Amino acid sequence: MHVRLYSYWRSSSSHRVRIALGFKGIAHETVTVNLLGGEQRSETHTARAPNQSVPALEIDGEVFIESVAIIELLDDLFPEVRLYPKEARERARVRALVETVNAGIQPLQNLQVLLRHSEDHDARNAWAHQFNARGLEVIERLMERNGPGRFAFGDAFGAADCFLIPQAASAKRFGVDLAKFPRVSAALAASADLPFVVAAAPENQPDAPKN
Amino acid sequence: MHVRLYSYWRSSSSHRVRIALGFKGIAHETVTVNLLGGEQRSETHTARAPNQSVPALEIDGEVFIESVAIIELLDDLFPEVRLYPKEARERARVRALVETVNAGIQPLQNLQVLLRHSEDHDARNAWAHQFNARGLEVIERLMERNGPGRFAFGDAFGAADCFLIPQAASAKRFGVDLAKFPRVSAALAASADLPFVVAAAPENQPDAPKN
Repeated sequence: MHVRLYSYWRSSSSHRVRIALGFKGIAHETVTVNLLGGEQRSETHTARAPNQSVPALEIDGEVFIESVAIIELLDDLFPEVRLYPKEARERARVRALVETVNAGIQPLQNLQVLLRHSEDHDARNAWAHQFNARGLEVIERLMERNGPGRFAFGDAFGAADCFLIPQAASAKRFGVDLAKFPRVSAALAASADLPFVVAAAPENQPDAPKN
Repeated sequence: MHVRLYSYWRSSSSHRVRIALGFKGIAHETVTVNLLGGEQRSETHTARAPNQSVPALEIDGEVFIESVAIIELLDDLFPEVRLYPKEARERARVRALVETVNAGIQPLQNLQVLLRHSEDHDARNAWAHQFNARGLEVIERLMERNGPGRFAFGDAFGAADCFLIPQAASAKRFGVDLAKFPRVSAALAASADLPFVVAAAPENQPDAPKN
Protein backbone atom coordinates (compact mmCIF):
# COMPACT_ATOMS: atom_id res chain seq x y z
CA MET A 1 0.00 0.00 0.00
CA HIS A 2 1.28 3.45 -0.82
CA VAL A 3 0.43 5.95 1.92
CA ARG A 4 0.85 9.72 1.65
CA LEU A 5 -0.06 12.18 4.40
CA TYR A 6 -0.95 15.80 3.67
CA SER A 7 -0.04 17.65 6.84
CA TYR A 8 0.82 21.02 8.36
CA TRP A 9 3.21 21.12 11.29
CA ARG A 10 0.95 23.11 13.58
CA SER A 11 -2.39 21.52 12.65
CA SER A 12 -3.52 19.56 15.70
CA SER A 13 -5.63 17.27 13.52
CA SER A 14 -2.59 16.45 11.36
CA HIS A 15 -0.67 15.82 14.57
CA ARG A 16 -3.21 13.14 15.60
CA VAL A 17 -2.72 11.25 12.34
CA ARG A 18 1.08 11.55 12.56
CA ILE A 19 0.94 9.91 15.99
CA ALA A 20 -1.34 7.12 14.69
CA LEU A 21 0.90 6.39 11.68
CA GLY A 22 3.96 6.35 13.92
CA PHE A 23 2.35 4.11 16.53
CA LYS A 24 1.45 1.59 13.85
CA GLY A 25 4.80 1.94 12.11
CA ILE A 26 3.17 2.58 8.74
CA ALA A 27 5.70 3.67 6.10
CA HIS A 28 4.46 6.82 4.40
CA GLU A 29 5.43 9.92 2.51
CA THR A 30 4.55 13.36 3.93
CA VAL A 31 3.50 16.32 1.81
CA THR A 32 3.22 19.61 3.68
CA VAL A 33 0.36 22.01 2.97
CA ASN A 34 1.09 25.55 4.09
CA LEU A 35 -2.07 26.69 5.89
CA LEU A 36 -0.67 30.16 6.57
CA GLY A 37 0.00 30.57 2.85
CA GLY A 38 -3.55 29.48 1.97
CA GLU A 39 -2.41 26.35 0.10
CA GLN A 40 -5.36 24.40 1.52
CA ARG A 41 -7.69 26.50 -0.65
CA SER A 42 -5.79 25.83 -3.88
CA GLU A 43 -7.58 24.00 -6.68
CA THR A 44 -5.24 21.04 -6.33
CA HIS A 45 -5.82 20.64 -2.62
CA THR A 46 -9.57 21.26 -2.84
CA ALA A 47 -9.87 18.45 -5.40
CA ARG A 48 -8.05 16.22 -2.93
CA ALA A 49 -9.76 17.43 0.25
CA PRO A 50 -13.15 19.09 -0.37
CA ASN A 51 -13.03 20.50 3.17
CA GLN A 52 -9.94 22.54 2.22
CA SER A 53 -8.19 21.28 5.26
CA VAL A 54 -5.53 18.94 6.57
CA PRO A 55 -4.95 16.15 7.34
CA ALA A 56 -5.77 14.21 4.22
CA LEU A 57 -4.47 10.70 3.75
CA GLU A 58 -3.94 9.18 0.34
CA ILE A 59 -3.92 5.41 0.18
CA ASP A 60 -3.13 3.94 -3.23
CA GLY A 61 -4.38 7.11 -4.91
CA GLU A 62 -7.63 7.41 -2.94
CA VAL A 63 -7.83 10.38 -0.57
CA PHE A 64 -9.51 10.27 2.85
CA ILE A 65 -10.28 13.25 5.05
CA GLU A 66 -11.30 13.93 8.68
CA SER A 67 -8.82 12.69 11.28
CA VAL A 68 -11.39 10.49 13.05
CA ALA A 69 -12.28 8.72 9.80
CA ILE A 70 -8.60 8.39 8.88
CA ILE A 71 -7.53 6.93 12.23
CA GLU A 72 -10.44 4.46 12.29
CA LEU A 73 -9.50 3.48 8.72
CA LEU A 74 -5.88 2.90 9.75
CA ASP A 75 -7.16 0.58 12.50
CA ASP A 76 -9.29 -1.27 9.92
CA LEU A 77 -6.53 -1.60 7.30
CA PHE A 78 -3.59 -2.16 9.67
CA PRO A 79 -5.13 -4.09 12.58
CA GLU A 80 -1.93 -5.71 13.90
CA VAL A 81 -1.28 -2.96 16.46
CA ARG A 82 -4.67 -1.65 17.51
CA LEU A 83 -5.64 1.92 18.47
CA TYR A 84 -9.23 1.04 19.40
CA PRO A 85 -10.22 -1.74 21.84
CA LYS A 86 -11.75 -4.90 20.40
CA GLU A 87 -14.72 -4.93 22.76
CA ALA A 88 -17.62 -2.80 21.48
CA ARG A 89 -18.50 -1.06 24.77
CA GLU A 90 -14.87 -0.18 25.45
CA ARG A 91 -14.58 1.11 21.88
CA ALA A 92 -17.58 3.36 22.57
CA ARG A 93 -15.81 4.78 25.64
CA VAL A 94 -12.72 5.55 23.58
CA ARG A 95 -14.85 7.14 20.87
CA ALA A 96 -16.49 9.34 23.50
CA LEU A 97 -13.05 10.62 24.53
CA VAL A 98 -12.10 11.10 20.88
CA GLU A 99 -15.25 13.10 20.11
CA THR A 100 -14.89 15.20 23.22
CA VAL A 101 -11.70 16.50 21.62
CA ASN A 102 -12.70 16.34 17.97
CA ALA A 103 -16.16 17.90 18.29
CA GLY A 104 -16.13 19.36 21.80
CA ILE A 105 -12.88 21.32 21.83
CA GLN A 106 -10.88 21.55 18.62
CA PRO A 107 -13.50 23.08 16.27
CA LEU A 108 -14.22 25.87 18.74
CA GLN A 109 -10.65 27.05 19.02
CA ASN A 110 -9.12 26.62 15.61
CA LEU A 111 -7.65 29.72 14.04
CA GLN A 112 -10.45 30.44 11.53
CA VAL A 113 -13.09 30.32 14.24
CA LEU A 114 -11.06 32.49 16.60
CA LEU A 115 -10.56 35.12 13.91
CA ARG A 116 -14.27 35.00 13.07
CA HIS A 117 -15.15 35.45 16.74
CA SER A 118 -13.22 38.63 17.44
CA GLU A 119 -10.58 41.02 16.22
CA ASP A 120 -9.37 41.36 19.76
CA HIS A 121 -6.48 39.10 20.78
CA ASP A 122 -7.53 38.91 24.44
CA ALA A 123 -11.13 38.07 23.57
CA ARG A 124 -9.94 35.29 21.26
CA ASN A 125 -7.63 33.95 23.92
CA ALA A 126 -10.34 33.96 26.61
CA TRP A 127 -12.68 32.07 24.25
CA ALA A 128 -10.05 29.45 23.37
CA HIS A 129 -9.01 29.10 27.00
CA GLN A 130 -12.60 28.51 28.09
CA PHE A 131 -13.39 25.80 25.56
CA ASN A 132 -10.10 24.01 26.14
CA ALA A 133 -10.50 24.06 29.92
CA ARG A 134 -14.13 22.95 29.77
CA GLY A 135 -13.34 20.09 27.38
CA LEU A 136 -10.37 18.85 29.39
CA GLU A 137 -12.55 18.85 32.48
CA VAL A 138 -14.99 16.53 30.70
CA ILE A 139 -12.10 14.28 29.67
CA GLU A 140 -10.83 14.21 33.24
CA ARG A 141 -14.29 13.12 34.45
CA LEU A 142 -14.62 10.49 31.73
CA MET A 143 -11.18 9.11 32.63
CA GLU A 144 -12.21 8.96 36.27
CA ARG A 145 -15.32 7.01 35.34
CA ASN A 146 -13.45 4.69 32.97
CA GLY A 147 -11.19 3.66 35.82
CA PRO A 148 -7.42 3.62 36.31
CA GLY A 149 -4.92 3.10 33.52
CA ARG A 150 -1.55 4.36 32.36
CA PHE A 151 -2.86 6.06 29.23
CA ALA A 152 -5.96 8.02 28.23
CA PHE A 153 -7.93 4.78 28.20
CA GLY A 154 -6.60 1.79 30.09
CA ASP A 155 -3.07 0.47 30.05
CA ALA A 156 -2.45 0.52 26.32
CA PHE A 157 -1.64 3.54 24.19
CA GLY A 158 -4.54 4.19 21.81
CA ALA A 159 -6.81 6.47 19.81
CA ALA A 160 -7.76 8.59 22.82
CA ASP A 161 -4.07 9.45 23.31
CA CYS A 162 -3.73 10.41 19.62
CA PHE A 163 -6.38 13.08 20.24
CA LEU A 164 -5.44 14.12 23.76
CA ILE A 165 -1.75 14.83 23.12
CA PRO A 166 -2.26 17.52 20.42
CA GLN A 167 -5.20 19.07 22.28
CA ALA A 168 -3.25 19.37 25.51
CA ALA A 169 -0.46 21.14 23.63
CA SER A 170 -3.03 23.57 22.29
CA ALA A 171 -4.62 24.07 25.72
CA LYS A 172 -1.19 24.92 27.13
CA ARG A 173 -0.65 27.54 24.44
CA PHE A 174 -3.92 29.18 25.56
CA GLY A 175 -2.73 29.25 29.16
CA VAL A 176 -4.76 26.35 30.57
CA ASP A 177 -3.16 24.90 33.69
CA LEU A 178 -3.01 21.17 33.01
CA ALA A 179 -2.13 20.43 36.64
CA LYS A 180 -5.84 20.87 37.38
CA PHE A 181 -6.44 17.64 35.49
CA PRO A 182 -4.35 14.96 37.23
CA ARG A 183 -5.54 12.01 35.11
CA VAL A 184 -5.00 13.90 31.87
CA SER A 185 -1.55 14.99 33.08
CA ALA A 186 -0.57 11.44 34.05
CA ALA A 187 -1.60 10.08 30.64
CA LEU A 188 0.38 12.82 28.90
CA ALA A 189 3.44 12.05 31.04
CA ALA A 190 3.14 8.34 30.22
CA SER A 191 3.35 8.98 26.48
CA ALA A 192 5.64 12.02 26.35
CA ASP A 193 8.87 10.11 25.68
CA LEU A 194 7.55 7.44 23.34
CA PRO A 195 9.64 7.74 20.16
CA PHE A 196 6.64 7.92 17.79
CA VAL A 197 5.07 10.64 19.96
CA VAL A 198 8.27 12.69 19.90
CA ALA A 199 8.62 12.22 16.14
CA ALA A 200 5.04 13.43 15.55
CA ALA A 201 5.41 16.65 17.55
CA PRO A 202 4.82 19.90 15.63
CA GLU A 203 8.30 21.24 16.26
CA ASN A 204 9.83 18.11 14.76
CA GLN A 205 8.10 18.42 11.38
CA PRO A 206 9.96 19.43 8.20
CA ASP A 207 7.78 22.53 7.73
CA ALA A 208 8.20 23.78 11.32
CA PRO A 209 10.11 27.06 11.56
CA LYS A 210 13.78 26.57 12.41
CA ASN A 211 15.03 28.22 15.57
CA MET B 1 -30.92 -5.68 26.48
CA HIS B 2 -32.57 -2.78 28.27
CA VAL B 3 -32.05 0.48 26.37
CA ARG B 4 -32.90 3.94 27.69
CA LEU B 5 -32.33 7.17 25.77
CA TYR B 6 -31.84 10.51 27.50
CA SER B 7 -33.02 13.06 25.00
CA TYR B 8 -34.29 16.61 24.48
CA TRP B 9 -36.71 17.27 21.64
CA ARG B 10 -34.72 20.06 20.06
CA SER B 11 -31.22 18.67 20.54
CA SER B 12 -29.93 17.81 17.09
CA SER B 13 -27.52 15.25 18.54
CA SER B 14 -30.41 13.51 20.34
CA HIS B 15 -32.30 13.60 17.04
CA ARG B 16 -29.48 11.63 15.35
CA VAL B 17 -29.71 8.84 17.92
CA ARG B 18 -33.51 8.75 17.75
CA ILE B 19 -33.25 8.18 13.99
CA ALA B 20 -30.66 5.42 14.48
CA LEU B 21 -32.73 3.63 17.12
CA GLY B 22 -35.81 3.87 14.91
CA PHE B 23 -34.00 2.66 11.79
CA LYS B 24 -32.77 -0.40 13.66
CA GLY B 25 -36.09 -0.95 15.38
CA ILE B 26 -34.50 -1.11 18.82
CA ALA B 27 -37.08 -1.11 21.61
CA HIS B 28 -36.19 1.54 24.16
CA GLU B 29 -37.46 3.85 26.84
CA THR B 30 -37.02 7.63 26.46
CA VAL B 31 -36.29 9.97 29.36
CA THR B 32 -36.42 13.65 28.51
CA VAL B 33 -33.85 16.08 29.92
CA ASN B 34 -34.99 19.68 29.83
CA LEU B 35 -32.02 21.64 28.50
CA LEU B 36 -33.82 24.98 28.81
CA GLY B 37 -34.48 24.22 32.46
CA GLY B 38 -30.81 23.35 33.06
CA GLU B 39 -31.55 19.70 33.95
CA GLN B 40 -28.41 18.59 32.09
CA ARG B 41 -26.30 20.25 34.80
CA SER B 42 -28.06 18.48 37.68
CA GLU B 43 -26.02 16.15 39.87
CA THR B 44 -28.03 13.16 38.66
CA HIS B 45 -27.46 13.88 34.99
CA THR B 46 -23.79 14.85 35.44
CA ALA B 47 -23.13 11.48 37.11
CA ARG B 48 -24.73 9.85 34.09
CA ALA B 49 -23.23 12.10 31.40
CA PRO B 50 -20.03 13.89 32.51
CA ASN B 51 -20.36 16.24 29.53
CA GLN B 52 -23.65 17.55 30.96
CA SER B 53 -25.31 17.00 27.65
CA VAL B 54 -27.71 14.86 25.68
CA PRO B 55 -27.96 12.35 24.14
CA ALA B 56 -26.89 9.70 26.62
CA LEU B 57 -27.76 6.08 26.03
CA GLU B 58 -28.06 3.61 28.88
CA ILE B 59 -27.64 -0.04 27.94
CA ASP B 60 -28.19 -2.50 30.77
CA GLY B 61 -27.28 0.17 33.32
CA GLU B 62 -24.13 1.40 31.57
CA VAL B 63 -24.32 4.94 30.15
CA PHE B 64 -22.69 6.00 26.86
CA ILE B 65 -22.29 9.56 25.60
CA GLU B 66 -21.42 11.35 22.35
CA SER B 67 -23.78 10.62 19.46
CA VAL B 68 -21.02 9.31 17.16
CA ALA B 69 -19.87 6.82 19.80
CA ILE B 70 -23.48 5.83 20.53
CA ILE B 71 -24.43 5.25 16.89
CA GLU B 72 -21.26 3.26 16.18
CA LEU B 73 -22.01 1.20 19.30
CA LEU B 74 -25.56 0.52 18.09
CA ASP B 75 -24.08 -0.76 14.82
CA ASP B 76 -21.71 -3.00 16.79
CA LEU B 77 -24.37 -4.38 19.17
CA PHE B 78 -27.26 -4.59 16.69
CA PRO B 79 -25.56 -5.41 13.37
CA GLU B 80 -28.58 -6.94 11.60
CA VAL B 81 -29.57 -3.67 9.91
CA ARG B 82 -26.38 -1.74 9.33
CA LEU B 83 -25.85 2.03 9.46
CA TYR B 84 -22.20 1.87 8.36
CA PRO B 85 -20.93 0.06 5.24
CA LYS B 86 -19.03 -3.20 5.76
CA GLU B 87 -16.12 -2.21 3.54
CA ALA B 88 -13.44 -0.23 5.41
CA ARG B 89 -12.83 2.48 2.78
CA GLU B 90 -16.55 3.09 2.32
CA ARG B 91 -16.92 3.27 6.09
CA ALA B 92 -14.20 5.95 6.12
CA ARG B 93 -16.17 7.97 3.55
CA VAL B 94 -19.31 7.76 5.69
CA ARG B 95 -17.33 8.75 8.78
CA ALA B 96 -15.98 11.79 6.91
CA LEU B 97 -19.57 12.91 6.24
CA VAL B 98 -20.51 12.21 9.86
CA GLU B 99 -17.59 14.25 11.22
CA THR B 100 -18.24 17.11 8.83
CA VAL B 101 -21.55 17.51 10.67
CA ASN B 102 -20.45 16.44 14.14
CA ALA B 103 -17.21 18.42 14.34
CA GLY B 104 -17.46 20.79 11.39
CA ILE B 105 -20.91 22.30 11.87
CA GLN B 106 -22.87 21.38 14.98
CA PRO B 107 -20.40 22.45 17.70
CA LEU B 108 -20.06 25.90 16.15
CA GLN B 109 -23.75 26.68 16.15
CA ASN B 110 -25.15 25.15 19.26
CA LEU B 111 -26.95 27.48 21.63
CA GLN B 112 -24.21 27.77 24.28
CA VAL B 113 -21.62 28.73 21.70
CA LEU B 114 -23.93 31.24 20.03
CA LEU B 115 -24.67 32.91 23.35
CA ARG B 116 -20.96 32.99 24.17
CA HIS B 117 -20.19 34.57 20.79
CA SER B 118 -22.49 37.57 20.99
CA GLU B 119 -25.37 39.21 22.81
CA ASP B 120 -26.69 40.40 19.48
CA HIS B 121 -29.32 38.21 17.82
CA ASP B 122 -28.31 39.17 14.27
CA ALA B 123 -24.61 38.54 14.92
CA ARG B 124 -25.44 35.10 16.33
CA ASN B 125 -27.64 34.31 13.34
CA ALA B 126 -24.97 35.40 10.82
CA TRP B 127 -22.41 33.21 12.58
CA ALA B 128 -24.70 30.15 12.64
CA HIS B 129 -25.75 30.74 9.04
CA GLN B 130 -22.15 30.89 7.88
CA PHE B 131 -21.00 27.69 9.57
CA ASN B 132 -24.08 25.76 8.45
CA ALA B 133 -23.75 26.93 4.84
CA ARG B 134 -20.01 26.25 4.73
CA GLY B 135 -20.42 22.76 6.19
CA LEU B 136 -23.26 21.80 3.86
CA GLU B 137 -21.14 22.94 0.93
CA VAL B 138 -18.42 20.51 2.03
CA ILE B 139 -21.02 17.74 2.33
CA GLU B 140 -22.34 18.52 -1.13
CA ARG B 141 -18.79 18.24 -2.56
CA LEU B 142 -18.13 15.01 -0.68
CA MET B 143 -21.40 13.55 -1.99
CA GLU B 144 -20.41 14.55 -5.51
CA ARG B 145 -17.08 12.81 -5.13
CA ASN B 146 -18.63 9.71 -3.53
CA GLY B 147 -20.83 9.27 -6.60
CA PRO B 148 -24.56 8.95 -7.13
CA GLY B 149 -26.95 7.37 -4.65
CA ARG B 150 -30.42 7.86 -3.23
CA PHE B 151 -29.27 8.72 0.26
CA ALA B 152 -26.39 10.67 1.84
CA PHE B 153 -24.05 7.80 0.97
CA GLY B 154 -25.06 5.34 -1.72
CA ASP B 155 -28.42 3.66 -2.11
CA ALA B 156 -28.98 2.58 1.47
CA PHE B 157 -30.10 4.78 4.36
CA GLY B 158 -27.25 5.03 6.85
CA ALA B 159 -25.23 6.88 9.47
CA ALA B 160 -24.58 9.89 7.20
CA ASP B 161 -28.34 10.41 6.93
CA CYS B 162 -28.72 10.23 10.73
CA PHE B 163 -26.41 13.25 10.95
CA LEU B 164 -27.52 15.14 7.86
CA ILE B 165 -31.25 15.22 8.61
CA PRO B 166 -31.01 17.06 11.96
CA GLN B 167 -28.29 19.40 10.68
CA ALA B 168 -30.32 20.38 7.62
CA ALA B 169 -33.27 21.21 9.89
CA SER B 170 -30.98 23.43 11.90
CA ALA B 171 -29.52 25.08 8.79
CA LYS B 172 -33.04 25.89 7.61
CA ARG B 173 -33.83 27.55 10.93
CA PHE B 174 -30.80 29.80 10.39
CA GLY B 175 -32.05 30.76 6.93
CA VAL B 176 -29.71 28.64 4.79
CA ASP B 177 -31.20 27.97 1.34
CA LEU B 178 -30.90 24.19 0.95
CA ALA B 179 -31.76 24.42 -2.77
CA LYS B 180 -28.13 25.48 -3.27
CA PHE B 181 -27.14 21.94 -2.37
CA PRO B 182 -28.92 19.65 -4.84
CA ARG B 183 -27.39 16.37 -3.63
CA VAL B 184 -28.08 17.19 0.00
CA SER B 185 -31.66 18.17 -0.90
CA ALA B 186 -32.23 14.95 -2.86
CA ALA B 187 -30.99 12.82 0.04
CA LEU B 188 -33.24 14.70 2.46
CA ALA B 189 -36.23 14.21 0.14
CA ALA B 190 -35.51 10.48 -0.13
CA SER B 191 -35.70 10.02 3.63
CA ALA B 192 -38.34 12.60 4.58
CA ASP B 193 -41.31 10.23 4.65
CA LEU B 194 -39.65 7.18 6.15
CA PRO B 195 -41.72 6.31 9.24
CA PHE B 196 -38.71 6.15 11.61
CA VAL B 197 -37.51 9.54 10.33
CA VAL B 198 -40.91 11.11 10.92
CA ALA B 199 -41.14 9.54 14.37
CA ALA B 200 -37.73 10.94 15.34
CA ALA B 201 -38.49 14.54 14.35
CA PRO B 202 -38.23 17.16 17.12
CA GLU B 203 -41.88 18.21 16.84
CA ASN B 204 -43.01 14.60 17.37
CA GLN B 205 -41.27 14.16 20.72
CA PRO B 206 -43.17 13.97 24.01
CA ASP B 207 -41.37 17.06 25.38
CA ALA B 208 -42.00 19.23 22.30
CA PRO B 209 -44.25 22.21 22.97
CA LYS B 210 -47.88 21.53 21.99
CA ASN B 211 -49.35 23.86 19.37
